[in-house]
Amino acid sequence: MAEMNFRPLHDRVVVRRVESEEKTAGGIIIPDTAKEKPQEGEVIAVGPGGRDDDGDLIPMDVKAGDRVLFGKWSGTEVKLNGEDLLIMKESDIMGVLA
Amino acid sequence: MAEMNFRPLHDRVVVRRVESEEKTAGGIIIPDTAKEKPQEGEVIAVGPGGRDDDGDLIPMDVKAGDRVLFGKWSGTEVKLNGEDLLIMKESDIMGVLA
Amino acid sequence: MAEMNFRPLHDRVVVRRVESEEKTAGGIIIPDTAKEKPQEGEVIAVGPGGRDDDGDLIPMDVKAGDRVLFGKWSGTEVKLNGEDLLIMKESDIMGVLA
Amino acid sequence: MAEMNFRPLHDRVVVRRVESEEKTAGGIIIPDTAKEKPQEGEVIAVGPGGRDDDGDLIPMDVKAGDRVLFGKWSGTEVKLNGEDLLIMKESDIMGVLA
Amino acid sequence: MAEMNFRPLHDRVVVRRVESEEKTAGGIIIPDTAKEKPQEGEVIAVGPGGRDDDGDLIPMDVKAGDRVLFGKWSGTEVKLNGEDLLIMKESDIMGVLA
Amino acid sequence: MAEMNFRPLHDRVVVRRVESEEKTAGGIIIPDTAKEKPQEGEVIAVGPGGRDDDGDLIPMDVKAGDRVLFGKWSGTEVKLNGEDLLIMKESDIMGVLA
Amino acid sequence: MAEMNFRPLHDRVVVRRVESEEKTAGGIIIPDTAKEKPQEGEVIAVGPGGRDDDGDLIPMDVKAGDRVLFGKWSGTEVKLNGEDLLIMKESDIMGVLA
Repeated sequence: MAEMNFRPLHDRVVVRRVESEEKTAGGIIIPDTAKEKPQEGEVIAVGPGGRDDDGDLIPMDVKAGDRVLFGKWSGTEVKLNGEDLLIMKESDIMGVLA
Repeated sequence: MAEMNFRPLHDRVVVRRVESEEKTAGGIIIPDTAKEKPQEGEVIAVGPGGRDDDGDLIPMDVKAGDRVLFGKWSGTEVKLNGEDLLIMKESDIMGVLA
Repeated sequence: MAEMNFRPLHDRVVVRRVESEEKTAGGIIIPDTAKEKPQEGEVIAVGPGGRDDDGDLIPMDVKAGDRVLFGKWSGTEVKLNGEDLLIMKESDIMGVLA
Repeated sequence: MAEMNFRPLHDRVVVRRVESEEKTAGGIIIPDTAKEKPQEGEVIAVGPGGRDDDGDLIPMDVKAGDRVLFGKWSGTEVKLNGEDLLIMKESDIMGVLA
Repeated sequence: MAEMNFRPLHDRVVVRRVESEEKTAGGIIIPDTAKEKPQEGEVIAVGPGGRDDDGDLIPMDVKAGDRVLFGKWSGTEVKLNGEDLLIMKESDIMGVLA
Repeated sequence: MAEMNFRPLHDRVVVRRVESEEKTAGGIIIPDTAKEKPQEGEVIAVGPGGRDDDGDLIPMDVKAGDRVLFGKWSGTEVKLNGEDLLIMKESDIMGVLA
Repeated sequence: MAEMNFRPLHDRVVVRRVESEEKTAGGIIIPDTAKEKPQEGEVIAVGPGGRDDDGDLIPMDVKAGDRVLFGKWSGTEVKLNGEDLLIMKESDIMGVLA
């Protein structure tokens, strides 16, 4: 993807899912529904942040380029620039892989 | 539409849905219920914003003219000036297409 | 109605429903249950406003005389001065027609 | 009732229900369950008010003697001085008849 | 009861239920389940009060010795000094009988 | 138990249940499920306290050594130093026996 | 595990479960589903903390290396560096073993 032409609102984050290769010892692909562990992804774009009770912006803890873990069912699928991406809230992200 | 003669209250946004052409390779129209991906629309009018816990206005992050993505089931359908539009809350909008 | 002799409390609004004429091309009246689109009405009286977390009044965004849109099922029906009116909260009002 | 010897706590209000005469054109009494419109009553006593998030009292918007409208199912029935009265929260009261 | 040796926490109140004599005209005792009206009681001990959002104590509006009304199902039954008492929150108390 | 080697977090309290002898007049032990009255216990350790909306600590109202009443179903059973104890929140404690 | 290469967000904590040996007197392993008591674990990494209503960070009460108790069903299982770990919120942790 050349450049992100989508600006997420509030505390939303655009994530490109990274499919991990999951094979059993014998090389059999585990069917998708059998794994509910967190998913890995790359942050593509982040919103300006949510707001506290005084209406002030709370800065985001992730930035574009971060490798993140998130729940398997987090976010909404969206096609941007012909690519399948996820829009989720930062609170759906568990942490950042260093 | 010549001019918007409707003033949304609070953090509400008036959106004109943009129907994307969705055909399969063979040119068959995908029936509407088969796609639950976010919808695209154009912002027609925005309210003054919601209020924080101190009663102060929180400025809106979208403005008239913005191309936005929103959930398929967001908002209430309304006919204004003979045109079918949607009234939704800004929090239903996922982001702005540049 | 000569004069409003009812003072709504808090962020409540008294609204007189404006029945729009809805006929099909052939002039058949659409039965009431077939339309769940927002309803139009005229604001008759407004309360002083709700209160924020500090107990301060939040000023109302509508005033008597405003033409407003509201959800079909919003508000409570009440007969005042022999007239059928609706008492609803300002948050049930989607916006003001100019 | 000579004098109120009951002090409501917080934002509670003691109301004496005023039964309105409801007859059909032919003079038939409408059975009670057929009307769910707001009820009319007279305020007998009011509490000191609820508290905002800082613990400060929010002054009451009704006072003893006010004629008020309230939902048919609002409040708790109580017998004070041998009289059947209602104890409800001020938020159950829709407004004051002038 | 000689002296209260129980200190309620927060906004809790210890109440001794006062059984009112309820007989029908013919002197028949109304069985307990037939009356859901508020109950009368005497306040035996009160906690220091709840806390507002800043953590400050909110002073209690009832004190030991007050005759109060409360909902029939309010509070938890407890035996203290061999006596059956109720522990409830102040918000379960509707008001104070003068 | 020699010394508590467990530090509860936030507003949690460690309690050792005190079994009261409950016999009927004839000396029959009442089976456990027949009594849902509050339970008595001794506070073994307390956390630093919860936090108000500003993030400041709210001091605890109980301390180690206090005899307290709490709901029969409050808390989580835990074995510490080989002893069966309960971890509950201070809000589960109704009051302190003097 | 050599070094933690995962940074938890907000008030999340990464925990390595410590399996306690649970045998009956006769040495029979108690099947897993029979024990719902808190679990023991070691804190591997902690986030920067949640935020109060003003958006300020609330410091964490646990740190890497702490031995903690947590509910059997707390947290999400995740595989990091090939090791099975748990990501939970600090509020799921009951306390710290000294």
